[in-house]
Amino acid sequence: MEEPFDENRTKEQSGENRLEKQLRFILEADKSKQVFRQTYLSDGTRKENDAEHSWHLALMCALLSEYANEPIDVAKTMIMVLIHDLIEIDAGDTYAYDEAGNATKRERELKAADRIFKLLPDDQSAWLRGLWEEFEEAETPEARFALALDKVQPVLLNDATDGRAWKEHEVRVSQILNRNERTPAGSRVLWNHVEGLIEKNTALGRIRDDR
Amino acid sequence: MEEPFDENRTKEQSGENRLEKQLRFILEADKSKQVFRQTYLSDGTRKENDAEHSWHLALMCALLSEYANEPIDVAKTMIMVLIHDLIEIDAGDTYAYDEAGNATKRERELKAADRIFKLLPDDQSAWLRGLWEEFEEAETPEARFALALDKVQPVLLNDATDGRAWKEHEVRVSQILNRNERTPAGSRVLWNHVEGLIEKNTALGRIRDDR
Repeated sequence: MEEPFDENRTKEQSGENRLEKQLRFILEADKSKQVFRQTYLSDGTRKENDAEHSWHLALMCALLSEYANEPIDVAKTMIMVLIHDLIEIDAGDTYAYDEAGNATKRERELKAADRIFKLLPDDQSAWLRGLWEEFEEAETPEARFALALDKVQPVLLNDATDGRAWKEHEVRVSQILNRNERTPAGSRVLWNHVEGLIEKNTALGRIRDDR
Repeated sequence: MEEPFDENRTKEQSGENRLEKQLRFILEADKSKQVFRQTYLSDGTRKENDAEHSWHLALMCALLSEYANEPIDVAKTMIMVLIHDLIEIDAGDTYAYDEAGNATKRERELKAADRIFKLLPDDQSAWLRGLWEEFEEAETPEARFALALDKVQPVLLNDATDGRAWKEHEVRVSQILNRNERTPAGSRVLWNHVEGLIEKNTALGRIRDDR
């Protein structure tokens, strides 16, 4: 005798439910394109959004991995940077130098991670959630390099726009140095370059020298 | 006797010239954020740009690689999709259904590839140029899957916006099917899903049925 037809089980067997969950997540991720950061694009016309920023970091990861202090798994690091800001779909972008916002940032982001990553099938949900936590903790070679890229990229764009976002927010050099505290642990070579850009822009008055 | 000081050679030895070239390319790539496509974001508020589109494809690649018809190198495919539209910085986005534009597309894109990839150090220039050519030729498992993602993603966004770009351009179903001719060769599973979306949107009158 044939078993009774079970639409749900058949769907699961054919992978349809799994694919539907993945595509729901992929459409949810689309909202990253509307989460805007404080950094301007290199042409200065508008601010950058999270999807663009993450694309830029993944490209940098592919091209600059030779400068990681330790050997890294490039694919893992690329996926880490591709997803590191997804939680901002719910939690919003907290400007690096917004102290009040940063006080509640972790709580808002954990809640967002609970909702967003759980849209995926369990295995992929645990995988991406794990990569996000690893990025936040910055205690593996991949996370240290990803974090360095995340801090270096806005300095490159700020330098390209003559410090526009720094000037608008009257950013102090101590804030940038503090924010980049862990950059040398990811890449001494990139930090050396970026330190030079910070000094140059401070000397030019685009960054307030509070040392 | 010491050799005379040669600033250029010293710079090259220290890797400075190499890093400068890489960073020049990375800043040039930033212009992708201002190359707009015809597809609307899932919230329908504005059109998508190349950087966002490429980020979305890389994320899809990481999550959907299980549906590639053949085993693929995920890292290679991610880098391929991250860079596949860089040539549009010079060549512009040619709308899929713009016949006049598509007649001159290849020539414009080759010229753009010559300029843009050559900003990089020779090894990375050849590497990315090769990946771009491989994507265009679509004759490897990675390129076939990357091409499938590139055609599937706009269908997902068009479906999410009730066919907005399709309606604006009065797109015919034969055009979409023609554009997706090689999608099943990359992923039968994704093609099956997308074919369903195309049929649904055609039945709803969002795509002109010219069969």
